[in-house]
Amino acid sequence: MISEKMKPLVANNSAIRAMFEEGAKQKAIYGEDQVFDFSLGNPNVPAPKEVKQAIIDILNEEDPVVVHGYMNNAGFPEVRKAIADSLNRRFDTHFHEGNILMTVGAASGLNVILKTLLNPGDEVITFAPYFVEYGAYVGNYDGKLVVVSPDTATFQPNLAELEEKITPKTKAVIINTPHNPTGVIYSEETLKKLAAILEKKQKEYGSVIFLISDEPYRELAYDGAVVPYVTKYYANTIVGYSFSKSLSLPGERIGYLVIPDELDDAENVFQAASIATRVSGSVNAPSLMQLVIARCIDASVDVEYYDRNRNALYNGLTECGFVCTKPQGAFYLFVKSPFPDEAKFCELAKKHHILMVPGSSFACPGYVRLAYCVSYETIERSLPAFRELAKECF
Amino acid sequence: MISEKMKPLVANNSAIRAMFEEGAKQKAIYGEDQVFDFSLGNPNVPAPKEVKQAIIDILNEEDPVVVHGYMNNAGFPEVRKAIADSLNRRFDTHFHEGNILMTVGAASGLNVILKTLLNPGDEVITFAPYFVEYGAYVGNYDGKLVVVSPDTATFQPNLAELEEKITPKTKAVIINTPHNPTGVIYSEETLKKLAAILEKKQKEYGSVIFLISDEPYRELAYDGAVVPYVTKYYANTIVGYSFSKSLSLPGERIGYLVIPDELDDAENVFQAASIATRVSGSVNAPSLMQLVIARCIDASVDVEYYDRNRNALYNGLTECGFVCTKPQGAFYLFVKSPFPDEAKFCELAKKHHILMVPGSSFACPGYVRLAYCVSYETIERSLPAFRELAKECF
Repeated sequence: MISEKMKPLVANNSAIRAMFEEGAKQKAIYGEDQVFDFSLGNPNVPAPKEVKQAIIDILNEEDPVVVHGYMNNAGFPEVRKAIADSLNRRFDTHFHEGNILMTVGAASGLNVILKTLLNPGDEVITFAPYFVEYGAYVGNYDGKLVVVSPDTATFQPNLAELEEKITPKTKAVIINTPHNPTGVIYSEETLKKLAAILEKKQKEYGSVIFLISDEPYRELAYDGAVVPYVTKYYANTIVGYSFSKSLSLPGERIGYLVIPDELDDAENVFQAASIATRVSGSVNAPSLMQLVIARCIDASVDVEYYDRNRNALYNGLTECGFVCTKPQGAFYLFVKSPFPDEAKFCELAKKHHILMVPGSSFACPGYVRLAYCVSYETIERSLPAFRELAKECF
Repeated sequence: MISEKMKPLVANNSAIRAMFEEGAKQKAIYGEDQVFDFSLGNPNVPAPKEVKQAIIDILNEEDPVVVHGYMNNAGFPEVRKAIADSLNRRFDTHFHEGNILMTVGAASGLNVILKTLLNPGDEVITFAPYFVEYGAYVGNYDGKLVVVSPDTATFQPNLAELEEKITPKTKAVIINTPHNPTGVIYSEETLKKLAAILEKKQKEYGSVIFLISDEPYRELAYDGAVVPYVTKYYANTIVGYSFSKSLSLPGERIGYLVIPDELDDAENVFQAASIATRVSGSVNAPSLMQLVIARCIDASVDVEYYDRNRNALYNGLTECGFVCTKPQGAFYLFVKSPFPDEAKFCELAKKHHILMVPGSSFACPGYVRLAYCVSYETIERSLPAFRELAKECF
């Protein structure tokens, strides 16, 4: 009874479900603390205390008809202004509330902007490894996702191949920095080169190519790493952001799009995106959480916690022989599989109660992803299991 | 730069915006309390006190990683169970948590189920007058909205015409009861006849026709009116619900779909709908509000307030000569325009600072919609203006 478009998504979902069920099964047999589940990107660090306080203050101070009511589909103006001001303070940008559109998380933001821009057959380019849902998002609007193969030496985007793959049908390029699943941050040098290629191709084809920067991990950067603000390098940039990780609110579905004035046809794109938010059924980002964001704009989760996890897991794994680019941001390690077929590696790891996601799920076989947004104790307890696993691999 | 599909939606949006701007302009000139804005279906009655208490209790009692975290895309199991139990208690149904899928409001629920079911070219039938966004929702999945003309004698659905308009391509029929914009409740007799037609046509064409019941106004029924539970009359029924009106939480975007076991291919439809929720970008309904719903399942806004408004406005309007079916539910009056062209009536009303929506926006010209989810004082103050307006009409 389900639509032709949903059928492959349902079929594909069984793999995710199988992994989830494997985790639940193992935990039931061996106990919660003897299973090392690195498969899910679900933050384990709680929301900062400012979030709870903001919610209580809002409920005590503001009119419930406003707090829980409809507003402009783009969001409360004062919330959008607070976000614009915060970006301007931190990144020396020049945004105003008219550039900020509140969304039901970053996933919804990406859908809104793709719905706004794509005609059937339009091409959207992204770089492997990539978050597999991009394919579904682009497919929702009958676009075609074009994948650039990975540069496994650095996991910076393969720009030579990008240039080859841009066609007159290229409507957008999606990047994700800090990057899931590798933890790489796209350098200023990378962004400058990327911008130059897009500028050149826009001129060559007389087309407009939008750069969509998916940035839910922006605030998770380690060792003082700088995450360059992409709008400063390329005018036709749209930023998708989420507070899922920076404030540990993934279930609340709260984020925004930045649609800068410099964008081609900016005003029209912004208006269409507001309408896309409405007609796609979201209508608006959740109202109470919007107000919370305005009050917590300078709050942050305990990034040090993730950093400690990152070092412990990276050091533990490399010490027993596994190979991995040290992540600069996000909360993932992307580890080279000791066998060409990483499914074999994942199966072997399961025997040691270690759960991880095969790189094939990110269009990058030969690798596995470990999400280290778990308790530090889980990492400590997992290291002997990794050492045993290494013995079977090397 | 925007997509071909979005262009007509942007063009159409200017009418809504114009009305909104007219209201803002008038309020600036004449003062907030001298403009009678009946154009928006935005609840003015605050959320019941139980909502605030539930939020505070949840923040004090539960783990923030759970409260604000990801859960199964279909929603927290205990929330879905609380909803199923409540429906079973009130409507003598037999639902379980596996029938309930939490959504980002009813608009998102409709989009999720249409995405789940529709192939391009599939027909979805609805009855004029109807909520104009249905057209956009069906169009999102390249379906074709087929509109049955209104029965202006009763505003019950025109079933004879429905029967004529069902084809082998009919995938779904959308009903809305209590009804926006007329306030009519579909009677048990109507639902039985409707079910018989759908059963007959399913047999005739060997097809499955889903009945989608959009019910955000279910709890707003007056004079003891019963709103029959649609799944009891037709097996292939899917219910879309929202807490926007029953708990005055429209900005929070919280609702659910009921996908009963009796539905054709129920398990597959449910799974696909969960995935549609995810890939459309919502991912899940907002987490804190889900938990609030479970604790407030028996709470309700002050329906008496709307009832008092309903009587005051209905009596005031009919006393000065306007004609209107007395609404049994929701918070709208659908008033016959004294002129064949209701745009002329709306223009005339504006001069008396009365703002209302033309029936053409609901595919039912010759009528206007007044949303009486406003303060009682607004209604009281508006009645002299309506009397002046009547003098110019009759």
